[in-house]
Amino acid sequence: MNNSASLENIKSYLLGLQENICSFLEKQDGKSTFLTEKWEREEGGGGITKVIQNGNLIEKGGVNFSHVHGQLPQNIAEKLKVPNGIFHATGVSLVLHAQNPFVPIIHMNVRYFELENGEYWFGGGIDVTPIYFDENAVINFHKHLKSVCDLTDNQYYTEFKSWCDRYFFIKHRNETRGIGGLFYDRLNENSRGKSKENLFEFMQNVGNSFNDCYSFFLNDRNKPFGEKEKLFQSVRRSRYVEFNLVYDAGTKFGLDTQGRIESILMSMPPMAQWIYNFQPEPNSMEELMMSKLKPIDWI
Amino acid sequence: MNNSASLENIKSYLLGLQENICSFLEKQDGKSTFLTEKWEREEGGGGITKVIQNGNLIEKGGVNFSHVHGQLPQNIAEKLKVPNGIFHATGVSLVLHAQNPFVPIIHMNVRYFELENGEYWFGGGIDVTPIYFDENAVINFHKHLKSVCDLTDNQYYTEFKSWCDRYFFIKHRNETRGIGGLFYDRLNENSRGKSKENLFEFMQNVGNSFNDCYSFFLNDRNKPFGEKEKLFQSVRRSRYVEFNLVYDAGTKFGLDTQGRIESILMSMPPMAQWIYNFQPEPNSMEELMMSKLKPIDWI
Repeated sequence: MNNSASLENIKSYLLGLQENICSFLEKQDGKSTFLTEKWEREEGGGGITKVIQNGNLIEKGGVNFSHVHGQLPQNIAEKLKVPNGIFHATGVSLVLHAQNPFVPIIHMNVRYFELENGEYWFGGGIDVTPIYFDENAVINFHKHLKSVCDLTDNQYYTEFKSWCDRYFFIKHRNETRGIGGLFYDRLNENSRGKSKENLFEFMQNVGNSFNDCYSFFLNDRNKPFGEKEKLFQSVRRSRYVEFNLVYDAGTKFGLDTQGRIESILMSMPPMAQWIYNFQPEPNSMEELMMSKLKPIDWI
Repeated sequence: MNNSASLENIKSYLLGLQENICSFLEKQDGKSTFLTEKWEREEGGGGITKVIQNGNLIEKGGVNFSHVHGQLPQNIAEKLKVPNGIFHATGVSLVLHAQNPFVPIIHMNVRYFELENGEYWFGGGIDVTPIYFDENAVINFHKHLKSVCDLTDNQYYTEFKSWCDRYFFIKHRNETRGIGGLFYDRLNENSRGKSKENLFEFMQNVGNSFNDCYSFFLNDRNKPFGEKEKLFQSVRRSRYVEFNLVYDAGTKFGLDTQGRIESILMSMPPMAQWIYNFQPEPNSMEELMMSKLKPIDWI
């Protein structure tokens, strides 16, 4: 583990993480490989977008690295409540939509922001949006996240699990996006006395946990499914679209700042469906799933 | 034509319009019929939602009437820059997604708003989002809109056609939602000296034009299509979703005020698809369509 929390070290960790996750996913998929596109930002920096489509496991997914820098736009400085100046923002962000409805949608993001006046913070998280509910997988996932958090601070899991439930909430549906996970933002030396090195270590622990986290949900990857399950998957995906386009701060930030549109919207599903007044059948697996879309203590 | 512009007359016109359009559409469809749901708003008023699905012509569509009233919420009064007080808002709104990719998505809305202090305005419009481009249909549609506008004011078409191009613009894609039409808002006696009766008449002319407007685009309703056309339809629909969830003021207003969610989102398509970095083939019909997604003088 690399402990000196310089921008260069953080960036090189993130580039390695992107490679590591993509090669894990290609091995899991066994059919499709990632397409790589490098892009540059006119005002400074750029990114590497990696996208996989029509695989055995993954119907559509993206694992993006970016490092953008330059003069912070005034309206964003105001939003972030920081002074104007030169900024750097770097991170890895991923969303995977699986073919099989028994494999959930998964999202992870780790990011770092710094300003020339010395201010900095870390943010990120990992969360899961199942189509069908698998209690064991959900509990194992949350237990694993707790063990990852406990390495840095034994209050982190409780705090960031609850932040995740609040953040990934589809207000107009009164339901959470999925079964939660972790969400944190603006962590710096003011947050519970952690050093920058502690927080960089936490970023690495979260990032490195991804492959194990996803593996908890791959047990049913070959479970047979039919039209009914595929239809429910497309309904669940439409809720995902609603969250990302109506509420997600990262998506809004990207659209507002005229970021690279295909990279911002790589999170969008391959196929989504809006059915008027969709109601799951009583006592069905679909109803069971819908009943879990609220904050729940999984451990 | 009913000329006294009282709230009661406006409302009864709108209820008749909903019936008229639905019976026209059922006749055109020949298979599915509208499902009717009445709903009430806790704070006052309610609506009649009519939805049609899985028809011969229409894959999914809704024609909604609503009349809501009560105390105007403070945040909305501020947004609208009007004093607080009792308000009434009534209108008909429709969106139709056809089965056949050679039939466009169509949207129409006519609405009326009044406040207890005597302020009032009319708003609305009609616009078309084709999957494939049919120049004759587009020109006939715009010519018809001009003739409808000219009955009230011979500047209306130019003004409202251009407002439509500006409003239905997907900023992050740098493209219009479709080939435009009309959009207008906050028309009252201050707008070019029209009386309230003139403006009510204009509302009726726009509303009554719907059946003819849609008919221009039904020539190819039985044209054969395959997977390629259906896929392009689902891509064009995903842009529709992006506009409605990211930019549309009516959708935002509905979500912010915790309106009836299934009525607000009846505009969403039955099936949409996000493909990474979708590019139409050179010199294809798909490329032709994409090249028309900008403000164009059609007449």
